[in-house]
Amino acid sequence: MFDKVLQDIYTESKLQPKIGEIANYIPELANVNPDKFGIYLTSISGEEFGIGDVHERFSIQSVSKALSVALAYSLLGEKIWERVGVEPSGNPFNSLVQLEYEKGIPRNPFINAGALVIADMLITELKNPKEDFLGFIRNCSGIADINFDYKVAQSEKDTGFRNAALANFLKSFGNINNDVDEVLDFYFHQCSIAMSCSELTKTFFFFANQGLTSSGELILNQSQVKRMNALMQTCGFYDESGEFTYRVGLPGKSGVGGGIVALLPKQFIVSTWSPRLNSNGNSELGMYALEQLTTKTGMSIF
Amino acid sequence: MFDKVLQDIYTESKLQPKIGEIANYIPELANVNPDKFGIYLTSISGEEFGIGDVHERFSIQSVSKALSVALAYSLLGEKIWERVGVEPSGNPFNSLVQLEYEKGIPRNPFINAGALVIADMLITELKNPKEDFLGFIRNCSGIADINFDYKVAQSEKDTGFRNAALANFLKSFGNINNDVDEVLDFYFHQCSIAMSCSELTKTFFFFANQGLTSSGELILNQSQVKRMNALMQTCGFYDESGEFTYRVGLPGKSGVGGGIVALLPKQFIVSTWSPRLNSNGNSELGMYALEQLTTKTGMSIF
Amino acid sequence: MFDKVLQDIYTESKLQPKIGEIANYIPELANVNPDKFGIYLTSISGEEFGIGDVHERFSIQSVSKALSVALAYSLLGEKIWERVGVEPSGNPFNSLVQLEYEKGIPRNPFINAGALVIADMLITELKNPKEDFLGFIRNCSGIADINFDYKVAQSEKDTGFRNAALANFLKSFGNINNDVDEVLDFYFHQCSIAMSCSELTKTFFFFANQGLTSSGELILNQSQVKRMNALMQTCGFYDESGEFTYRVGLPGKSGVGGGIVALLPKQFIVSTWSPRLNSNGNSELGMYALEQLTTKTGMSIF
Amino acid sequence: MFDKVLQDIYTESKLQPKIGEIANYIPELANVNPDKFGIYLTSISGEEFGIGDVHERFSIQSVSKALSVALAYSLLGEKIWERVGVEPSGNPFNSLVQLEYEKGIPRNPFINAGALVIADMLITELKNPKEDFLGFIRNCSGIADINFDYKVAQSEKDTGFRNAALANFLKSFGNINNDVDEVLDFYFHQCSIAMSCSELTKTFFFFANQGLTSSGELILNQSQVKRMNALMQTCGFYDESGEFTYRVGLPGKSGVGGGIVALLPKQFIVSTWSPRLNSNGNSELGMYALEQLTTKTGMSIF
Repeated sequence: MFDKVLQDIYTESKLQPKIGEIANYIPELANVNPDKFGIYLTSISGEEFGIGDVHERFSIQSVSKALSVALAYSLLGEKIWERVGVEPSGNPFNSLVQLEYEKGIPRNPFINAGALVIADMLITELKNPKEDFLGFIRNCSGIADINFDYKVAQSEKDTGFRNAALANFLKSFGNINNDVDEVLDFYFHQCSIAMSCSELTKTFFFFANQGLTSSGELILNQSQVKRMNALMQTCGFYDESGEFTYRVGLPGKSGVGGGIVALLPKQFIVSTWSPRLNSNGNSELGMYALEQLTTKTGMSIF
Repeated sequence: MFDKVLQDIYTESKLQPKIGEIANYIPELANVNPDKFGIYLTSISGEEFGIGDVHERFSIQSVSKALSVALAYSLLGEKIWERVGVEPSGNPFNSLVQLEYEKGIPRNPFINAGALVIADMLITELKNPKEDFLGFIRNCSGIADINFDYKVAQSEKDTGFRNAALANFLKSFGNINNDVDEVLDFYFHQCSIAMSCSELTKTFFFFANQGLTSSGELILNQSQVKRMNALMQTCGFYDESGEFTYRVGLPGKSGVGGGIVALLPKQFIVSTWSPRLNSNGNSELGMYALEQLTTKTGMSIF
Repeated sequence: MFDKVLQDIYTESKLQPKIGEIANYIPELANVNPDKFGIYLTSISGEEFGIGDVHERFSIQSVSKALSVALAYSLLGEKIWERVGVEPSGNPFNSLVQLEYEKGIPRNPFINAGALVIADMLITELKNPKEDFLGFIRNCSGIADINFDYKVAQSEKDTGFRNAALANFLKSFGNINNDVDEVLDFYFHQCSIAMSCSELTKTFFFFANQGLTSSGELILNQSQVKRMNALMQTCGFYDESGEFTYRVGLPGKSGVGGGIVALLPKQFIVSTWSPRLNSNGNSELGMYALEQLTTKTGMSIF
Repeated sequence: MFDKVLQDIYTESKLQPKIGEIANYIPELANVNPDKFGIYLTSISGEEFGIGDVHERFSIQSVSKALSVALAYSLLGEKIWERVGVEPSGNPFNSLVQLEYEKGIPRNPFINAGALVIADMLITELKNPKEDFLGFIRNCSGIADINFDYKVAQSEKDTGFRNAALANFLKSFGNINNDVDEVLDFYFHQCSIAMSCSELTKTFFFFANQGLTSSGELILNQSQVKRMNALMQTCGFYDESGEFTYRVGLPGKSGVGGGIVALLPKQFIVSTWSPRLNSNGNSELGMYALEQLTTKTGMSIF
């Protein structure tokens, strides 16, 4: 069934005007071909459908935040919410003032401040933080050669003054326990992970499969998975989470590399890649394609 | 099936410590017995389950906003989003500054500023705004004697300086077309509507039934209903929308009268009433009961 | 001595590029000839020097706030600072959020919110508020026919939704005691007062003369006058108070009608009128002329 | 004349209730005896009057900002205002949001963000930044052994995460040219300078003497000094600049070490030291003593 629908969406999407700019704050992201486009869907029953550039790896960037939160949640349970909230953040303009107003507790783990706090937790919990995080992702996906892109990580480190500001600000409130430089190093590596559309659907399989990976390993229990999906639904798309929920109606997570992963619990995981971003930093064509998917199939959580 | 579950939840809920304060900014709300408590569930297949104070009417307050938006949406379609957004609002502290920053376009139709803009739309569109809005609700629910509580409406008008400030502020941006006093009068009446838990589930039936009321009338089409539910999911619980989504995992809407209505598309509509509010203005016990419901049954959208 | 200096400044000022826009939010202000320009200086010793359009009346607008504060201060003393602060307000963007953050206490009496609170005080204290305020000004200046411009006042009332928002917001915090409409009516009349440059220097004579009008009446004592001047220095020019202090170095007050009054204690009062406003709402040419005055004469408070 | 007045003020001040807390964020400041108190006045004509603990050195902290701005201003002239403003900052809560809103241009050079930008300018302009800055101060004061307190500087470095956040945030806007760590190192050393009340009046002599030090060296010209004093008047006391101007009526600068320096142009420089701070971080007793001084003598700029 998905074969025909995805084919139609792909064809229509390619006809859309080319809107949006590629992320260009570091050369490694700016050099990507902006016209790359792919859609990949993996169903819980094991079927896979892909069209376009679905096997080429790209920088998953903030999509990685859903994975770091899942790992921290599996290790620490509800305790993580003592240091980070579960509420959408309003607009970007408010992020710093909110952090001040709310005494250093980021609104949610998907804004950069929250992801830095999660990184700090993982550094404390993991023996070899970067290696262990990579191991977690390889384990979820069953793909052994998923890796950091060290050039991307280094570039972000060289220019990431705003993230350094956030980390220091959090530390001034006592919400970073480890060394600021170590937290930033972990965070920039985490965001630099490269995956393809196909690989993203495999990695996020357990979000749609009640916590079980495709090889049957339990990552999170059913209640935890429900909560992770809820969190992605309200906070997964920066300041456009409401818009994504409104238009697409699936929990998901996007990154400035142009990737989006979304899922319908107990049904499927779908991933898109198109590097042109709208003004909110989300993939323009990716959102279009996913809106078409839920509209044409009537399959959404609502 | 729901019989036993609701009975258990009711029993457990009654044993919870009595936390939270009743809304007391007007005498009409302050005089309600804080220990009132009821849960009512109506399934799409037509079954009904109720326990506790489910037939006593209370002031639905902001629950009415979901209904005024639904009516405006049915009359004007996507055009309504030119004057109000679909994004969660962050914290209350930011509401005014956001309105300024975003040039008088409220973040969503469920914050007061947004509801005032919706009220302004309805005044323009409806011949006899208050009567017609009441007619719409009677029609959705099939209950002919649902009515405004004129004493509540008058009290709110006498003390509603903050809403008057918002309406004037919106008008200064050109986002209120009618007279400020007329908009406030409509808004205060809308919020004063009194319903019981049982009646709420009947009124919101079409949100869970792909847009059709129980008598088969089409209020919104399927795509519109999906979008309304998405909107309630991300914005329906003030600054606790993320928390409600995280804990309960159902789209819904709350009011300071202590009522909550929530729903699982194609399955059921559930309503709770308990006047004690938490610090975010949501019913403490209502949220507890609904969290129990989705946890015990495993029935949520995620 | 001032004769030659003022003549030079006038000549140079007329050669300046015509920068800035006339206030145009109401027709009565928009219809003024933007090239009007005058400078008038009255020394404490009784000498007067004027050049240009110094005897034509214009709408003094916010310049009136210094007079309403002086009257409230003379009637209520330090008590007025329980309801309004003495700190500069930062940028306009913050005004509403500050009001919220600081529980309805405006930062100072020269921002609109503060002026509304002062208006509320005067309504409570004065028997016939508008008439008595006019009488106060006539008394300070010794000019019997100074009056409101009723057309200006009515126009502001018809379009003053932002001030209505502020007044309602203040009332929601309990910092307006009288009826909102009455406060707005007083405020709009106060701002509509028409005076010429010459008349402004006479009205503000007591600010530079240790509290005594030119006819020898004591309006404020020496300590109070010092404090009034201090307040104008830090808060008298909207969000450009620092800039005015930096460039001119005299306490003063401006209005969107294009008027500025400034003074050197025990020396002189000077007034300028030029309706073209810079982006902060202050008279572009007036600020230029006053900067020239203190630079050429070396006479400033610093 | 000042002898008797200062004696009276000293006696009265010692009778005041002991209000306020000593700065305690680093041990070096927390260990100071909170009851230290001194007043020192140096007149332009060369007379000196002192009473209390006027020869004991303390950490001047933010008082140093007036000196770093003076040095940068003397080196770069009006160009410095391209990177930092001259407006008061409103309340502390807004500082970060303003920095964001105003694209990384701090409101004035006395808030920490502004002082960091000034530090960055000095590092670029000076050959040996820390040594040269110390040389500048020794030169202004004529006191050869004024020095940094290296323990204080180190302590601030170890805990100054908020300043590190600010510096990184400024760098993300391109308003820091040098290495963040180097800027912070300079800044923490600058603030650690130790001086006595007596020494402060000598160092700030040129602010009151039209730019000339007591040994006759020209640091700033007359117009520049006027502007420096104007800046201290509107921005010198954190979020209490309006209050200080209102109560005292002299330009000045305070520090969390409990020191205040103020001056009446062409008349005198006065300094106080009392480590107990009010909630705005200004010396409680110091402000009291200075208010008494201008009230008793009638000598203020207004």
